[in-house]
Amino acid sequence: MGMVGGGLDAFIGAVHRRAAAFDNEIELVCGVFSQSPEKSKAAGHAFYLPEDRVYASFEEMIQREKELPEDVRMDFISIVTPNHMHFPPAKMALENGFHVICDKPMTLNLEEARELAEIVKKSGLVFGLTHNYTGYPMVKEARDMVRSGKLGAIRKVVVEYPQGWLSKFEEGNDYKQAIWRTDPTKSGAAGCMGDIGTHAENLAEYITGLKISELCADLTTFVPGRQLDDDGNVLLRFDNGAKGVLHASQISNGEENSLKIFVYGELGGLEWHQMEPNTLKFKSQEDQRIIRPKVNALSAAANAHVRVPAGHPEGFFEAFANIYRNFAFAVKAHMNGQQPDPLYDFPGVEDGVRGLAFIDTVITSSQSDEKWTKFIH
Amino acid sequence: MGMVGGGLDAFIGAVHRRAAAFDNEIELVCGVFSQSPEKSKAAGHAFYLPEDRVYASFEEMIQREKELPEDVRMDFISIVTPNHMHFPPAKMALENGFHVICDKPMTLNLEEARELAEIVKKSGLVFGLTHNYTGYPMVKEARDMVRSGKLGAIRKVVVEYPQGWLSKFEEGNDYKQAIWRTDPTKSGAAGCMGDIGTHAENLAEYITGLKISELCADLTTFVPGRQLDDDGNVLLRFDNGAKGVLHASQISNGEENSLKIFVYGELGGLEWHQMEPNTLKFKSQEDQRIIRPKVNALSAAANAHVRVPAGHPEGFFEAFANIYRNFAFAVKAHMNGQQPDPLYDFPGVEDGVRGLAFIDTVITSSQSDEKWTKFIH
Amino acid sequence: MGMVGGGLDAFIGAVHRRAAAFDNEIELVCGVFSQSPEKSKAAGHAFYLPEDRVYASFEEMIQREKELPEDVRMDFISIVTPNHMHFPPAKMALENGFHVICDKPMTLNLEEARELAEIVKKSGLVFGLTHNYTGYPMVKEARDMVRSGKLGAIRKVVVEYPQGWLSKFEEGNDYKQAIWRTDPTKSGAAGCMGDIGTHAENLAEYITGLKISELCADLTTFVPGRQLDDDGNVLLRFDNGAKGVLHASQISNGEENSLKIFVYGELGGLEWHQMEPNTLKFKSQEDQRIIRPKVNALSAAANAHVRVPAGHPEGFFEAFANIYRNFAFAVKAHMNGQQPDPLYDFPGVEDGVRGLAFIDTVITSSQSDEKWTKFIH
Amino acid sequence: MGMVGGGLDAFIGAVHRRAAAFDNEIELVCGVFSQSPEKSKAAGHAFYLPEDRVYASFEEMIQREKELPEDVRMDFISIVTPNHMHFPPAKMALENGFHVICDKPMTLNLEEARELAEIVKKSGLVFGLTHNYTGYPMVKEARDMVRSGKLGAIRKVVVEYPQGWLSKFEEGNDYKQAIWRTDPTKSGAAGCMGDIGTHAENLAEYITGLKISELCADLTTFVPGRQLDDDGNVLLRFDNGAKGVLHASQISNGEENSLKIFVYGELGGLEWHQMEPNTLKFKSQEDQRIIRPKVNALSAAANAHVRVPAGHPEGFFEAFANIYRNFAFAVKAHMNGQQPDPLYDFPGVEDGVRGLAFIDTVITSSQSDEKWTKFIH
Repeated sequence: MGMVGGGLDAFIGAVHRRAAAFDNEIELVCGVFSQSPEKSKAAGHAFYLPEDRVYASFEEMIQREKELPEDVRMDFISIVTPNHMHFPPAKMALENGFHVICDKPMTLNLEEARELAEIVKKSGLVFGLTHNYTGYPMVKEARDMVRSGKLGAIRKVVVEYPQGWLSKFEEGNDYKQAIWRTDPTKSGAAGCMGDIGTHAENLAEYITGLKISELCADLTTFVPGRQLDDDGNVLLRFDNGAKGVLHASQISNGEENSLKIFVYGELGGLEWHQMEPNTLKFKSQEDQRIIRPKVNALSAAANAHVRVPAGHPEGFFEAFANIYRNFAFAVKAHMNGQQPDPLYDFPGVEDGVRGLAFIDTVITSSQSDEKWTKFIH
Repeated sequence: MGMVGGGLDAFIGAVHRRAAAFDNEIELVCGVFSQSPEKSKAAGHAFYLPEDRVYASFEEMIQREKELPEDVRMDFISIVTPNHMHFPPAKMALENGFHVICDKPMTLNLEEARELAEIVKKSGLVFGLTHNYTGYPMVKEARDMVRSGKLGAIRKVVVEYPQGWLSKFEEGNDYKQAIWRTDPTKSGAAGCMGDIGTHAENLAEYITGLKISELCADLTTFVPGRQLDDDGNVLLRFDNGAKGVLHASQISNGEENSLKIFVYGELGGLEWHQMEPNTLKFKSQEDQRIIRPKVNALSAAANAHVRVPAGHPEGFFEAFANIYRNFAFAVKAHMNGQQPDPLYDFPGVEDGVRGLAFIDTVITSSQSDEKWTKFIH
Repeated sequence: MGMVGGGLDAFIGAVHRRAAAFDNEIELVCGVFSQSPEKSKAAGHAFYLPEDRVYASFEEMIQREKELPEDVRMDFISIVTPNHMHFPPAKMALENGFHVICDKPMTLNLEEARELAEIVKKSGLVFGLTHNYTGYPMVKEARDMVRSGKLGAIRKVVVEYPQGWLSKFEEGNDYKQAIWRTDPTKSGAAGCMGDIGTHAENLAEYITGLKISELCADLTTFVPGRQLDDDGNVLLRFDNGAKGVLHASQISNGEENSLKIFVYGELGGLEWHQMEPNTLKFKSQEDQRIIRPKVNALSAAANAHVRVPAGHPEGFFEAFANIYRNFAFAVKAHMNGQQPDPLYDFPGVEDGVRGLAFIDTVITSSQSDEKWTKFIH
Repeated sequence: MGMVGGGLDAFIGAVHRRAAAFDNEIELVCGVFSQSPEKSKAAGHAFYLPEDRVYASFEEMIQREKELPEDVRMDFISIVTPNHMHFPPAKMALENGFHVICDKPMTLNLEEARELAEIVKKSGLVFGLTHNYTGYPMVKEARDMVRSGKLGAIRKVVVEYPQGWLSKFEEGNDYKQAIWRTDPTKSGAAGCMGDIGTHAENLAEYITGLKISELCADLTTFVPGRQLDDDGNVLLRFDNGAKGVLHASQISNGEENSLKIFVYGELGGLEWHQMEPNTLKFKSQEDQRIIRPKVNALSAAANAHVRVPAGHPEGFFEAFANIYRNFAFAVKAHMNGQQPDPLYDFPGVEDGVRGLAFIDTVITSSQSDEKWTKFIH
């Protein structure tokens, strides 16, 4: 693995590195960790990389690595830069034969996303997108329960993602994470909706297997001086006639990272909270069950993503690691000329296109006087 | 107290009777408990009433009681019939000098509500509306915290009221509670939104002190054959610029009576769940507190509605009893020519008008292609 | 009902009155509410009693009421005084033909308890003891699950009752509840163990149907100047070979009224918390279920003690009212010459004797160097 | 790092490897993963080790590695075998200049533990013991709160560790984890008390800074045919006069891995549950606070063990990794001739001796008729 971005002061880069290493399937062999060559070198040193595998630009990395012997060079790149720097390295890597795993949202805008989807298709290579919340075992279980009909036809979905960390003008406080996420040139057209609204959208579609067909959004920028939305409320309609609500916020004061989803069908309902990820609740009018890893007889899909006995909490890193491990399995399968095992799934370029389409649609809707805006796709 | 409705097979009538009796301030002295004189008599007998105080119609009750000596006759009537039978006895009672406490929604439609507001005003009598969830001590505390500025300016409100009990066509099962609630001639123009959406609306406005100024609603009837909405999702805008979401449902399979509210301000957030009513959560980016009766130094408003030491759970009946006790205090004050004590507040006719206006507005909005519908008032 | 104790400044008296009145089966007709005749009169006035039914002593009340016509006089007395004043009125009432319901612990000491058991037996009258926590529907359900074998043979019981309200020397603060509870002449030989340890003991035996056969106790008085134990830890052995732990405390700083019980059998385990009384958890190695009123198909025993639909929280008063209602049913049955319906059970004199025996046993054990002390009975 | 034990079918070996690798401070360079040379080789291959660094015995590993150049050979060994195989490799490694990190309980018996303590002392080398639950940030915070006096003098400690996985005779089911843990030749003199009771004992002493001075234990073997205790209840007395309860079980049917601790002092109480490890509750009679990573201003000790923003759950692996990282820091410091930074603490040989002493003491007490047994040390 060669990494693009993720220097010593980045948050998500360290998460990706730990996730990649977690199952001993992936080794960091090279990287360009910063736009500043000095910072990149310092990071490479801290990560115990040889100096000649720490590069000054992604272009240099891709070119030089390509020239290395096959068993030495990196197999894929991991892109963990701010959003505006996803597309260029992804495109160049794919065009030079490297697989790609990339943070979300996939690109700066929908146009890039569509172009990237074409490039991936043409390349035949593996593309992974780190919608990491789909890596939790109980999310896999929830999806399996819906698929296997335990809820009956889905009628209603409520997905919510409140955070409070941008309740003040943090981008004025030299707070790096806040600065780029509220800067449209780096984050894209949406703030909150791009950063976490897309996670909510992806999770809802992943678990239910449904697609949002139209929506009605009300986005707001509450904090004076902020350039992008920091809150959004959205009515959803799904392609099977189900209805829903999605709300996400970065000004929900006091909320940590409180992604939750509720799915109701004709036969029962499900509830999952990211902050207590090892518990899935199933409810009907006659029964309420707590579903837990290594307690219940989980689906094969869920079991394939658990590493410990009951009651040993797995969390954020382990779910993230599941995405990386599954991506690594797919890369291995590709190298061996095999099809990837569907048990070890991970989000891909189509999820990325839908994410950018979601961003475009909520912005269009929020600016419109019409009630319903078709999901652009 | 004279009761209208609430026979032996009714749910809410028994609740009202227990709530009224709870603090030993109110005595049931007469009633008309059913449209059937036999059933009414049987109920009166079960409630240990003398036969001559059990009536065949509310008209008879009001006329006869009026003729009794002042210290014998009922002081007020309690109306616990289906919605279409709220307005007639309320009007007649008020016009004959009796105070009124009434179940919600206040009337069958907005027109009646407005007329009733006029009648109450003209009468100078006390009118109470049993939006019982405002009777919980921790709801009082939440309102006090907002009022006293502990949250700063309110930015976002999420209020949700999922139930699952109408997930099937229960009105076909000789299930009395389901039958009248899904019958527009008895329930009014809305089903779920009238029955529980109004509670959510009332709670949000009660706690925040804000008014909904416009909204965007998507109501649905999921169960085939049903005449009224059984689910609704609503975007809210408040008069101070705050945004919000209200969703209510009777097809959220497996949910019991899960009214919850989340209020976020510039300084902090609050969270309250009806099913764990003695806990109020306060959260900011630096602190998370569990606020509990008789633990924290609560506001006078909250303390005035707690009856037991810490850790002795009070619930639905006690909150309902708070409404009745406060109403009784106001009736007493009226009898003594005094002003009611604002510490012992309860919902009134204006809440009732807003409830019916809410119903009208969500129905109008749901049928409209325009995004925002002004809150009709 | 005639009440002994429970003046205007008492806590538990008001609870008993509300509980007695809750189901409209019991009417307060007379009382002696205080040792001070003035205070007793004031209380009687506040409770809307006629002056001639408010007495100066329990002796006077019993004598005078006995002289009243049968359909006028009280049917039973309710004793809500401090512990040292339980036995005398109970004895006199029973010997004069009145049924008795009494707060716990039943008497000041085991000798009185045994004598009272004899008196009850001889009288043939109904005796109830307000171990109110057995009135919760989910406690009934737990007992039913054990009885019907859903847990298999019971192996282990953990019952804990931590409170924190006596963490300081509150009896020095003119705090009435603290003063008598820490005074051996009024409370008896034990403090914490008598006040709440007996509840824990009773609950464990009630749910499991087992009897404690021997125990090993370590009682402590932590707060300087206090006369009685304020904390106790006890190892338990049950008559079927099950083991257990009971710990109770009034210096567990920050705890409210946190009675909890965990019962483990060969097939599964149960968990119930008094502060969230409407939830019963059942767990096995393959399943975890949340059992809730009006959701699950509860036992007849549990259903007979629920009054509201799912999700409408019932609490402390309702459980207490269940004890009173069931006692009233038994009194009615007695009047009609019938056997009481076992569905409507309530704690009786035998529970009271075991409670006092428990107090004696833990005190003996705590003072002993021997490991195990046989449960005195 | 060279590993002893932890083959492909072991649970805890994989945990140690992931924990060791988590912070990129430790590299697995060699190992002996099984008593079977074939299995050891297969494991080494799976872990991407060169063949010549996979050994047939720990003796061979220590000898051969010692002969390698300093910058190539392993720096320390990690021992993850069953308990009876802890002491021999630990002793030999230390005597040959290698640091040691070892699973708990430290040795098969107290005699070995004391000898090992001597060897560690003589060697001057670093010894770590994976009482992993002390690696959780909120456990560090709890300890810091006690140390800094926020609870006042500690009065009571309740620590409980119920599991249910040995509710049946699993050792008869070819279940490797069950077989060795219930075999006294491999596990030692205690079953449940050795495996998890020691964790509870260690946690209580770690957080409070107190030492158990005497105890009274009742150990039981519930499952027929089992050779060691599967349940134990213990009364505790601490060296400052505090009292406590410790109970641990492997037959608490339906419990997962439910380690919990409650600490009560003169000023407040703390509560922590391993299964929701990112929440620490602080309670007093006036306040209840939820303390969470990156929300509250945590102590330096806690902050040094958190890797993610608020609301991103860290769990079992991350806590385990904290032990390994801190051990690695101490090894580095040792190599550089520096003192270890006390901020990055981890359990050591003295904790190990107390663990074995605890096992001896509870067994002695359980077999004794005397109430109190001094903590053997």
